Amino acid sequence: MGGDLILGLDPGTAATGWGIIEVAGSRPRLVDCGTVTTSARDPESERLLALYRGVQAVIDDYSPAAAAIEELFGGANLKAALSVGQARGVIILACAERGIHPAGYTPLRIKQAVVGYGQASKGQVQQMVKSLLGLDRVPRPDHAADALGVAICHAHSRRTEAKLGIHG
Amino acid sequence: MGGDLILGLDPGTAATGWGIIEVAGSRPRLVDCGTVTTSARDPESERLLALYRGVQAVIDDYSPAAAAIEELFGGANLKAALSVGQARGVIILACAERGIHPAGYTPLRIKQAVVGYGQASKGQVQQMVKSLLGLDRVPRPDHAADALGVAICHAHSRRTEAKLGIHG
Repeated sequence: MGGDLILGLDPGTAATGWGIIEVAGSRPRLVDCGTVTTSARDPESERLLALYRGVQAVIDDYSPAAAAIEELFGGANLKAALSVGQARGVIILACAERGIHPAGYTPLRIKQAVVGYGQASKGQVQQMVKSLLGLDRVPRPDHAADALGVAICHAHSRRTEAKLGIHG
Repeated sequence: MGGDLILGLDPGTAATGWGIIEVAGSRPRLVDCGTVTTSARDPESERLLALYRGVQAVIDDYSPAAAAIEELFGGANLKAALSVGQARGVIILACAERGIHPAGYTPLRIKQAVVGYGQASKGQVQQMVKSLLGLDRVPRPDHAADALGVAICHAHSRRTEAKLGIHG
C-alpha cells in the first residue's frame, strides 16, 4: 500500500454503491468496488440495518483513511429525498463510528472533478472513471462506478486544496 | 409494570423528541419523556452519531415492546426532507438493532388519533396529550410532548386493529 485509501459512496436504500481507491502520487488506483443492495420486500428498518452493516463491513475490510458521499441532486422529489436521507443517515453513521467524517459532493462537483465539466452525462463520468483508473472496462454495476467517481472527486479536491495550501 | 411500553419518536437532527408510555387497559400512562439534542456547531456525522447513541440509550433504559415514529409532513422542502430523513435513518436503525420495527404515522393520522380530527393545532394535540395521560401540565419541551402524541397514536391504532381483529 503506497498511499491512503479513499472510500466513495453513492447512497440509496435499494442499492448503495461503494468504491475504494488508493491515491499515491497523482494517479488513483482501483482497490475494490461493489454495491450493498436491499430488498423492497423487507421492512424499511431491516433494509436500513442491512445497509448499515454492509457499509460497516466495507469499512472494516479496508480501513479507508477518508470517505466521500454523493449529495442529493436538486431534481429529487420529497419522497426520494426522505429515502436517500435515511440511507445517507445510516451510511454517515457507519463512517462516524469508525472516526471517519465523510465529505459531501454534489453531482455537479463530481462531474467537474472527474470529467472537467458539470454538464457531463452519467456515461461520460463512467468512461472517465474507467480511463482515470486505467481499467479495461467500466466497473459494474453503475452504482459502484458512480461511487468510484465520488472517491476520485474527493482525491481531486484534496489535491487542489493541498496545492492552494488550504491544508495538507 | 402492568402493560407494554411504547416508545414514540419525533425525529429531527437538532432535536429528536422521545416519549415512553405504558398501556395497560385503555388508559395510557406516562413513563418518561425527553429530547436528544445535537449542536449545529458539530459536523453532521458527529450529530448523527450523538442522535443514534441517545436513542439507543433510551431503548436500553426502557426496553420498549414497540416504537412509532412521525412521518414527514407534506409541506417540507427538499433540504428539510433530507435532514429529517438522515435523522430518521439512524433512529430507525437504533430500533432495528434491538429488534423493534417502528411504525410510521403522518401528522394527520396522529392528530386524528389524539384529538379526534386531522386539522387540530399543535397546541391542541399537546393539551390532549396532557389530558389523556392525566398530567398537571403539558410535557416539555415541545418535541417530547409531540413524541408522546406519536406513542398515543400507536396505542390507539393497535387497539383499533385488535377490535377489528386485524391482529392481536
